[in-house]
Amino acid sequence: MEDRRPHVVIVGAGFGGLYAAQSLAKLPVKVIIVDRKNHHTFQPLLYQVAMAVLSPAEIASPIRGIFRSHKNVEVLLGEVVGFDLEKQMVKFKDSEVTISYDYLIVAAGAGHAYFGHPEWAPLAPGLKTIEDALEIRRRVLMAFESAERRAAVGVPAPPLNFVIVGGGPTGVELAGALADIARRVMANDFRFIDPKQARVILVEGGPRVLAAYPPDLSASAEKQLNDLGVEVRTKTVVTGVEDGQVRIGDEVLPSAVTMWAAGVAASPLGKMLSDKTDKAGRVTVANDLTLPGHRNVFVIGDLASYADADGTPVPGVAPAAIQMGKFAAEMIEADIDREPRRTFHYLDKGSLATIGRSKAVGMVGKIHFSGFIAWLAWLFVHVMFLIGFRNRAFVMAEWAVTYFSYQRAARLITDRA
Amino acid sequence: MEDRRPHVVIVGAGFGGLYAAQSLAKLPVKVIIVDRKNHHTFQPLLYQVAMAVLSPAEIASPIRGIFRSHKNVEVLLGEVVGFDLEKQMVKFKDSEVTISYDYLIVAAGAGHAYFGHPEWAPLAPGLKTIEDALEIRRRVLMAFESAERRAAVGVPAPPLNFVIVGGGPTGVELAGALADIARRVMANDFRFIDPKQARVILVEGGPRVLAAYPPDLSASAEKQLNDLGVEVRTKTVVTGVEDGQVRIGDEVLPSAVTMWAAGVAASPLGKMLSDKTDKAGRVTVANDLTLPGHRNVFVIGDLASYADADGTPVPGVAPAAIQMGKFAAEMIEADIDREPRRTFHYLDKGSLATIGRSKAVGMVGKIHFSGFIAWLAWLFVHVMFLIGFRNRAFVMAEWAVTYFSYQRAARLITDRA
Repeated sequence: MEDRRPHVVIVGAGFGGLYAAQSLAKLPVKVIIVDRKNHHTFQPLLYQVAMAVLSPAEIASPIRGIFRSHKNVEVLLGEVVGFDLEKQMVKFKDSEVTISYDYLIVAAGAGHAYFGHPEWAPLAPGLKTIEDALEIRRRVLMAFESAERRAAVGVPAPPLNFVIVGGGPTGVELAGALADIARRVMANDFRFIDPKQARVILVEGGPRVLAAYPPDLSASAEKQLNDLGVEVRTKTVVTGVEDGQVRIGDEVLPSAVTMWAAGVAASPLGKMLSDKTDKAGRVTVANDLTLPGHRNVFVIGDLASYADADGTPVPGVAPAAIQMGKFAAEMIEADIDREPRRTFHYLDKGSLATIGRSKAVGMVGKIHFSGFIAWLAWLFVHVMFLIGFRNRAFVMAEWAVTYFSYQRAARLITDRA
Repeated sequence: MEDRRPHVVIVGAGFGGLYAAQSLAKLPVKVIIVDRKNHHTFQPLLYQVAMAVLSPAEIASPIRGIFRSHKNVEVLLGEVVGFDLEKQMVKFKDSEVTISYDYLIVAAGAGHAYFGHPEWAPLAPGLKTIEDALEIRRRVLMAFESAERRAAVGVPAPPLNFVIVGGGPTGVELAGALADIARRVMANDFRFIDPKQARVILVEGGPRVLAAYPPDLSASAEKQLNDLGVEVRTKTVVTGVEDGQVRIGDEVLPSAVTMWAAGVAASPLGKMLSDKTDKAGRVTVANDLTLPGHRNVFVIGDLASYADADGTPVPGVAPAAIQMGKFAAEMIEADIDREPRRTFHYLDKGSLATIGRSKAVGMVGKIHFSGFIAWLAWLFVHVMFLIGFRNRAFVMAEWAVTYFSYQRAARLITDRA
C-alpha cells in the first residue's frame, strides 16, 4: 500500500530542522530529516568542548536517538548537493540516492567567512562543529605542551599568545574561557612555564564587543573580559593570518593559536535554491518563510534572510531558528487543515552572552543585567535547553564537578588523521 | 642550586610507566614521564569506545592531572626517537630537545602487526589508542548509516558483514559487543534496514578463541559468542585484506568493516635499545628487568621479554606491566638505600575476559568460571581499577544508565581530517 501522507524532507538537523521535525512528528505526515552529521550539535556550548571543559558526547545527541520513538520520522545521513524544485527532488552526493518531497524545509545553517581569504581557514579554525571544537582544543593544549617541553630543556619558545578574531558572542566566550583556564586550571599542571603569563587577545574590527547588545552591556562585557585578563582590542582590523602570527595593519602579533569568530557565510545550498541571496548568502524568504514562487519550500534558520513587519531583521540565533522551525511545521499543518497561511513574527525573549565563570551580560526587554546574576541566568537557560534528558543530567553533574574541583577530565588531545 | 636528586626518565605512560612514576613519586628522585599522547589510556575499555558505549574522556586521563600534586614529577609531551646509552640522553623528534637521565625506564608498549602486510593497516584498523577506537566507531556507525540510506531509496547495498580478525581477548570483546549492539540497540533506530541481520564474523587462525585460556573456557567463550549471534571461524587464516572484503584461502568474505585484533609488535624503540629482541621486537631483559650491561636502564611492560624462573614467559597484560613498573621503582629505591637488587617474579592473580553483556570467562588459580558471575567479576575489577576517582564514578554512572536504558549517547560519528 502506497504511503499517501505528505512527505516532508528537512535538510539540516540544527535547531531549525530539529524543532520542525519534532513539531511535524505529531502530524499525519512522513518526515525525512537529512544531515551530513549523525548528531545534532548544541552549538551554544561548543566553546566548552573547545576549551576542554566538556566532552563531545555531552553537547551532541545522535539524531536517530532523538526520533527513536517517532515512527513517522526517518533519519538519513548524507550530504545534499542540490535540488530539483520542479520535480520536487533532493540530490545527494551519493549519486545513486535521490529522494522526492511534497514539502521541503531547508535548514542548512551557516559556516565561516574569512573576509574573502579562504586560505586563512586552516590557520585560524572557527567553531561550528564538534570537529572544529576538537581541533581548537588540540591546538590550545598543544601550545602549552610545546612551550613546557621547550622550557624544560631551556630552549627558547615563542610567546604563549592566543589571538581570537571577532568580538561577537563566540569570540567573547572563547576569550573568557581561555583566560580563565590558563589562570586557574593550567597553572597547577606545569612545572617550567607559568600558564598565567599566557596572553589572550580578542581582536574586533568594530568599536565595541558584542555589537548586537546595547553599549552599556558591551562596556560591561569588556570590563569583565579585562578582569579575566583578556586584552580587548577594538577598532582593530586583521589584515593577515599567517603561521604563528596575525597582522593588524603594520603590526605583527605573534600567535601560538589563532581562532576565528568573525564572519558568517550561509550554506552554499542557499544559492542552489535562489538567485536572491544577500551578501552572506542567505535566501530572502516570503512572509510565510517560503521561497518566493514555491509554496512548498521553506527556508529557515541562519540560511534565511527575513525582516519583521517593522523592518527589524531576524537575528541568526538559536531561538529564531527554533521559532522558524515550529512555524514551518504549523504552515504545513494549516495546509492539511485547509486553513490560510500566516505571517511569521519573531518573538525576542531576551539575550544572554556568557563571558566566563560567573561572568555574563543579558537583557530582557529594557532590563539590562550583568555579572553573576546574568551568568546564573545563562547557566539555567542553557542547561534546561539541552536536548535529551540524559545529556541534561550529565552536563549538570559534569559542570558541578568542574565548578568545584577545577579538574578538566575532558582535556584530551586526540590527533587528526 | 643544582638538583642533586637522581633523574629518572620514564618513556611511556601506559600501565607500566604510570605505576613506575606513581611509586617513584614518593622517593627522593626527580621523575620525568614522557609520552606521545597527553593522556593515559585505559586500554581494557577501549573496545567500549570503539562500540560507542563510552566516550573517550571516560577511559582516558590527562597525565598532568594524575601527577598534579606530585611536584617531583614532570610530564613532557613528545615523541622519543632514540637514546644515547653512553651519554645517558633521550632524543626527541623535536630535535632541539634532549634530556639526560640517571635512570631510564622504557615502557613504550606495543602496536599492531599485520603478518608482514603493513598495507592492510588502513583497511583493518586495530585497537590500541583513542584515535583507533574513534576510527572503528566511525566505520561501524557509517556502515549502518550507508546501508539505511541505500535501503531508503531501494538501491542495493553490500551485506552488513563485520569481520574481526583475531580471537584473542580484544577480538572476542569487539565481536561480542558488536553483535549485542546490532541486535539490541541499533534495532530500534533504523526504519529500512534490520540491524539484527548484520553478521559478525570472528576469524581466528588457531584451533580455538582465547588461546591463552584453558580449553574448557575457550569452549565456553565460543558458546557465549554463538549465543550473541557471532559466527566464530577457527583454524581460518586470513590471506588478504581488501577494500570491502577479506580473503580466507580461496573464499572471499564481503566485509563492510574489517577490524584487526590479531598480531602485536613491540614499539620500534626496542630495537634502538638492544640487538637482542624477539620475533615481536621485545627486548630480552635481565632478572632485575634491566637491559643487560646497563644497570640503570629498565625495560618493562609489553616491550620486555622475560621468563620467570620456571621458564613461563610473563604475558603482555596490564597486571604484569603494573608489577614490572612497581618493581623497577623498587630497584631504584634499593640503589638509593644501598640494598641489593632482586629478581622479578610475576604474580598471576587470575584472568578475566569479557564477551558481552552478562557474558565472560575467568580463572583464578585452578578455578574456572564463566557467564554472569565472570562478567560481574570483570565489571568490578575493571571499574575499581580505573585511574582517577572522577572517571571511576562517571564510568559507573554511565554504565548504569547504559545498562538499563540501552541508550548510546556516545554514538557520535566524528570525521577524521
